[in-house]
Amino acid sequence: MEPDAMRTAPMKLITIVAEPVLEERLLQEVKRLGARGYTLTEARGEGTQGVLQWMGRNLRIEIVASAAVADAILEHLAHDYFRDYAVIVYVADVQVVRGEKYE
Amino acid sequence: MEPDAMRTAPMKLITIVAEPVLEERLLQEVKRLGARGYTLTEARGEGTQGVLQWMGRNLRIEIVASAAVADAILEHLAHDYFRDYAVIVYVADVQVVRGEKYE
Amino acid sequence: MEPDAMRTAPMKLITIVAEPVLEERLLQEVKRLGARGYTLTEARGEGTQGVLQWMGRNLRIEIVASAAVADAILEHLAHDYFRDYAVIVYVADVQVVRGEKYE
Repeated sequence: MEPDAMRTAPMKLITIVAEPVLEERLLQEVKRLGARGYTLTEARGEGTQGVLQWMGRNLRIEIVASAAVADAILEHLAHDYFRDYAVIVYVADVQVVRGEKYE
Repeated sequence: MEPDAMRTAPMKLITIVAEPVLEERLLQEVKRLGARGYTLTEARGEGTQGVLQWMGRNLRIEIVASAAVADAILEHLAHDYFRDYAVIVYVADVQVVRGEKYE
Repeated sequence: MEPDAMRTAPMKLITIVAEPVLEERLLQEVKRLGARGYTLTEARGEGTQGVLQWMGRNLRIEIVASAAVADAILEHLAHDYFRDYAVIVYVADVQVVRGEKYE
């Protein structure tokens, strides 16, 4: 085993839940903001956010990124999506093995 | 950007993994206990919990909620499901953008 | 409600994202290393890790385990997979209801 193979780094796990029609646009934007990758799962959901209500198919996008990239993504989503789309975003702390790849 | 658009709030992310047959019942119950929404993904799984063993299709239900709602959901699941069903429940801390929508 | 039904325990949630061809091998290995169960979802993804790039179908494997089992799984993946496969691994802290079942 390489000496540093088990080095872990604190990173942010950003989860975005959004309408499927937003997939291409959201993925382009998060990559432009610094995301080095994403994992996308098909989901169903239901929710209410203020006057927005939705039920049906959803995309669930997960991104592991540095705190700076996470902040940029959150700010972008809050600014460009929250007024008009039923987008949910939350962030968790994770430890990533080989974290230097996500800078 | 609105002054408070990036306000984040600490919330709980509750993940429930359960048999597909429980979907409708579980979703009704978590909404009754205060969940404002959920995200549901189809999964497969395998596990052992005491005398319970399972392998096959699973539902994975994610709920973002206040700590009080999370406690109510955990208590309900522990009381009504753990003896008879292979239900797994875990809770993580997340930061939610625009968290006031989940109260 | 049983007196101890709501006992929670701090555990680790390990998420592995990998190529679908690795499914059987990875699941056998994590069980050998002490995982008592897993949840598997089909995903799509894209990413870059050093010289590795990938895009397409992914498996997303989630495992709730003790810190010791989590460490063993991370060490194994770092040692046996990171040089040759586009495997992503991250770990989060979770509170598990009825945590004694995951030891």
